[in-house]
Amino acid sequence: MTTASVCTIGDEILIGQIVDTNSSAIARALQDVGIKVEDMVSIGDDRRVIINTLKRELKKNSIVIVTGGLGPTKDDITKAALARPSGSKGYVEHPGQLAVVHDILASRGLDMLESNRLQASVPDTCEVIVNALGTAPIMVFRFPQERFGHPATLYSLPGVPHEALGALPQIMEDIRAHNALDAIYHKSIMTFGMAESALAEKIAPWEDSLPADMHLAYLPNMLTGVKLRLSIYGGRKEDEEKRIEEAFARLKPLLGDKIYAEQEDDLQHAIGRLLRGTGRTVSCAESCTGGTIAALLTSVPGASEYFLGSVTSYAIAVKEKVLGVPPEVIRQNGVVSSEVAAAMAEGVRRLTGSTFAVATTGLAGPAGDENNPVGTVWIGVSGPAGTQTFRKQYHNDRKRNIERFAAAALDFLRLAILNS
Amino acid sequence: MTTASVCTIGDEILIGQIVDTNSSAIARALQDVGIKVEDMVSIGDDRRVIINTLKRELKKNSIVIVTGGLGPTKDDITKAALARPSGSKGYVEHPGQLAVVHDILASRGLDMLESNRLQASVPDTCEVIVNALGTAPIMVFRFPQERFGHPATLYSLPGVPHEALGALPQIMEDIRAHNALDAIYHKSIMTFGMAESALAEKIAPWEDSLPADMHLAYLPNMLTGVKLRLSIYGGRKEDEEKRIEEAFARLKPLLGDKIYAEQEDDLQHAIGRLLRGTGRTVSCAESCTGGTIAALLTSVPGASEYFLGSVTSYAIAVKEKVLGVPPEVIRQNGVVSSEVAAAMAEGVRRLTGSTFAVATTGLAGPAGDENNPVGTVWIGVSGPAGTQTFRKQYHNDRKRNIERFAAAALDFLRLAILNS
Repeated sequence: MTTASVCTIGDEILIGQIVDTNSSAIARALQDVGIKVEDMVSIGDDRRVIINTLKRELKKNSIVIVTGGLGPTKDDITKAALARPSGSKGYVEHPGQLAVVHDILASRGLDMLESNRLQASVPDTCEVIVNALGTAPIMVFRFPQERFGHPATLYSLPGVPHEALGALPQIMEDIRAHNALDAIYHKSIMTFGMAESALAEKIAPWEDSLPADMHLAYLPNMLTGVKLRLSIYGGRKEDEEKRIEEAFARLKPLLGDKIYAEQEDDLQHAIGRLLRGTGRTVSCAESCTGGTIAALLTSVPGASEYFLGSVTSYAIAVKEKVLGVPPEVIRQNGVVSSEVAAAMAEGVRRLTGSTFAVATTGLAGPAGDENNPVGTVWIGVSGPAGTQTFRKQYHNDRKRNIERFAAAALDFLRLAILNS
Repeated sequence: MTTASVCTIGDEILIGQIVDTNSSAIARALQDVGIKVEDMVSIGDDRRVIINTLKRELKKNSIVIVTGGLGPTKDDITKAALARPSGSKGYVEHPGQLAVVHDILASRGLDMLESNRLQASVPDTCEVIVNALGTAPIMVFRFPQERFGHPATLYSLPGVPHEALGALPQIMEDIRAHNALDAIYHKSIMTFGMAESALAEKIAPWEDSLPADMHLAYLPNMLTGVKLRLSIYGGRKEDEEKRIEEAFARLKPLLGDKIYAEQEDDLQHAIGRLLRGTGRTVSCAESCTGGTIAALLTSVPGASEYFLGSVTSYAIAVKEKVLGVPPEVIRQNGVVSSEVAAAMAEGVRRLTGSTFAVATTGLAGPAGDENNPVGTVWIGVSGPAGTQTFRKQYHNDRKRNIERFAAAALDFLRLAILNS
């Protein structure tokens, strides 16, 4: 199997200033074309370390993808280090990349400095894929069999995430064109509302019945639930895709509406799919989640078609005055209660005229109150069929609680829409 | 200088399922005690690869911190791999960790299975730091000089981020106790409202005047602006801290209110500091930012003291009905306009009775409209001194625009509070 190494260059990663998200995105893209990522490495802007690390990784893998270490203030350490193992004798200016540098500077009203022009210069041993999104070119170094004991290719991408990710389709195309890759087939379904262990127990007989060449992965995420992914390496596309479909078809009756999508997805997009084109709308009222549910719903492009608005009612006066929660309901039941969650959902539904509404009231932390421990949330969902409330109890980490509360609320909203 | 390597174990990282945030947090902690992180490595759950990688890193560094690869379903590959270079002859059960395992299971109403009990077993060559937050113990392997050519220590932490991070203070204490570390002094100030390049140009004379042993780093972040950090290695604590203070004192007049904190911070905490204990309050009205400003403001523990609430008015009807934006203002100026931003801020301030209010109306993407390109936002800030509006223009990435809009809005809110 073809293996790859993903290398990130930059002191800013080693001092913990930046979380490296490029490597993860690159790994997913490689995985999708059937290449196994053997390791990921992050190193500093040090020429010797870069040379040694890249040589080591090129010996072990036929594909090495490097991000970072390029930029007008980086002193070209990386380019010099890349030039070395490739036996480069000098630099050449790449007219296509130079044109992009020129356009980017012009659009910002800036003159071209020598440091800008140098960005379009590359070692004479590489091929260039023009980076249309930034000034640093994408460099491709191809090494013959005799250099590392196998044919190897090194791709150098800029470190800026949207430039690195923007280059991935071209890189994957180049990799496909130059490697005889095993086929790989994946399909995922998304579930919410069962912890990984409970899910595993529930579907154990199904999992045990899977053929030996079919691999199941449990991929849990706080905001999106547990993703179940089936993979097969090799075989004919139509056959294998059909086998995976059939396996999932046997799973679906076991999980019912715990499954919210039969593809990579999240709850807010699933809700969008349920509402879009139906004329039905949604709103929300948030206390402890503080705007997070609204932010998730509106992260979906085109959400304005079905999301009318929300009220974050942190102060009791806002709950009463804006959402119309009766003061006696708060007095009698406390702010964190089924009754207040219901009244908030009904209040924001009335206020915005939406078809559905979801509301949260709870204690994200750091502290609980006299009636409820930290981590308690009441969720209210209101719609044409009436109002329901749900209680959930989590732990004592404020940030995680806010996310868990918001995800649970989105899921109850989804189920209410589904069952209406 | 003492160097370290940070290693992450887990197939889920190599397939791109999980973004590794542990390494970054560990790097920051190491940096703070004056240890240079030489590299970061992520590898899969493969015994041979784990052994080879750890040996390689222990040869190069005197400290290796490993996260992940532990858990009841991991088949103990990692523990076996760790036991190997340490010459372990067998496993011993650690009573302190077993008690934690027992308590965690009991709190969830679960019986102890053999796989749970095994989690508290460790190679007989390691010291244990009890992990109070989870079932997997923290293991410390100390290697004598002759094993790798220098004394070396390997720390093995669980992969679950809050457990790994929770263990860091104890790990750093152990590192300090066992290593003669150079002192390191850092101090950061936070700026907002100037791009890194403009900031660099503005403070170039100051930067050039810094003594040679004082290192300046520019650390930009979309949500929190550009952090400027000064570092000195070695020297006496009081002297060096005073020198850094003096250097920053000379910087402050150059940047004025672009500086929002003289420590690691973000805009929402800075706003909290300005408001807390003053009786003054804030609310917000969001269109294109969809709840993100409210979510940021309420991410601060104790925000309920000064944050009253917010309205996300995605639909025009919500802008008119809930926020009281006059329909003719929208008709005459368009939804994305100075006038609507001002009316939204004034509307939510009136509705909640807050001292200050901030509002956004703009086009985060994917598309612009007939009057404004994608990436346009109008921000309104209202307070006792009146209402001001600001226009900002960014690019065409929806997710990034929402974050940039929200951060810009928080900064204008901060300045309004500061100048009131």
